[in-house]
Amino acid sequence: MHDVRRIDVMENIHDENDRIAADINADMTKKNVFAVNVMGAPGAGKTSALKWLIREMKGLNSYVIEGDIESDIDTRALRALGVNAFQINTFGACHLDAPMIHDSARNLSFDEGGVLFIENIGNLVCPAEFNIGEHIKLLVCSVTEGCDKPYKYPLAFEKADIILLNKTDLLPLLDFDGDFFMKGLRALNKDAPVFRVSGKTGEGYEAAAAWIAAEAKKIRSPLDNF
Amino acid sequence: MHDVRRIDVMENIHDENDRIAADINADMTKKNVFAVNVMGAPGAGKTSALKWLIREMKGLNSYVIEGDIESDIDTRALRALGVNAFQINTFGACHLDAPMIHDSARNLSFDEGGVLFIENIGNLVCPAEFNIGEHIKLLVCSVTEGCDKPYKYPLAFEKADIILLNKTDLLPLLDFDGDFFMKGLRALNKDAPVFRVSGKTGEGYEAAAAWIAAEAKKIRSPLDNF
Repeated sequence: MHDVRRIDVMENIHDENDRIAADINADMTKKNVFAVNVMGAPGAGKTSALKWLIREMKGLNSYVIEGDIESDIDTRALRALGVNAFQINTFGACHLDAPMIHDSARNLSFDEGGVLFIENIGNLVCPAEFNIGEHIKLLVCSVTEGCDKPYKYPLAFEKADIILLNKTDLLPLLDFDGDFFMKGLRALNKDAPVFRVSGKTGEGYEAAAAWIAAEAKKIRSPLDNF
Repeated sequence: MHDVRRIDVMENIHDENDRIAADINADMTKKNVFAVNVMGAPGAGKTSALKWLIREMKGLNSYVIEGDIESDIDTRALRALGVNAFQINTFGACHLDAPMIHDSARNLSFDEGGVLFIENIGNLVCPAEFNIGEHIKLLVCSVTEGCDKPYKYPLAFEKADIILLNKTDLLPLLDFDGDFFMKGLRALNKDAPVFRVSGKTGEGYEAAAAWIAAEAKKIRSPLDNF
């Protein structure tokens, strides 16, 4: 299975992807759009995270590209809240890649800059391998998934710039060892801030949104202040 | 990305995988071993399902091949319970494939037949695309993941022969619409039985184990009765 020909093809795919991702990133930066690659397992609460973050993203426009294998359930829910959301369906593919974002970004107008949330396919493995032009990777994981996830799915935790630990309202009912989780995480990733949040109550999202907004300001050119 | 060369390589990989999977299946059947491909999202409760099923698998030997990207947390937990478990680490790969099972099955002896549970990588997308020599696919999904999962990850639900709907002890605290879940599931899969289970209380596992044991008997040759 691991023959030279397959490895060649995979390397070509990654190189081509990274080239397009760099173009997207440069283009977004120029437009004052801060792109956030939102990753997490199925049902971790990525869409509910977007709803809360967008609500708390005071004074910054928000845009969403919603990735799903099939269906547009989340895009319809976001649009019902007035969010400018565009749907990508991958019809089988297990992650978003840069060419998909390149094609779909044309369908959104970013006149005033802001934050573009790109919700990746629910998958704690493959999305972490592909840059899609983002400025940061945001990982949503939920306490119901268990405290051993950093040990079992290291790449996503290693690459995350910010982590939302979701569904904390259920903690009293679970055997979730927070110290074991943080120990596994910090062995892979020394810096990413961890926000304990609840998609049910909204707890923790104000602080997480403020952190993202502060990061978003860093990409703005100094000339913007004049 | 979707060039002819890549598609050729992917088709070759699938053909080769299916050939090896057919060999494994024939070999397991000959040894009276019923192989179960255990799939589900990260944290769905696959390992806790194995613990309960093995406990309820009266009179049938159980074996486990435990697939993880990294770590051997689950294998150690199973061995501590006396289960004959073998670890596969894929070091990045997002699913198990037939060559991996072919290589690792040599490390288990199946003298008396029984049930081999193969716990796949936690991923609701990629594992459903690869046969690994199993007789049935068992899908573990948890109510904490939300009721929209069949709509968003159709292949895993379509291919499942049995579904365990786990973490039902948390149902009173969740907005899980069981009718919407079943409607989505039955649009893809008319026949697979759904067992509502709890990894915390063990509820539902006796019936699920009995169903698997009954299926396992079907592969035994009529000569075994003499």
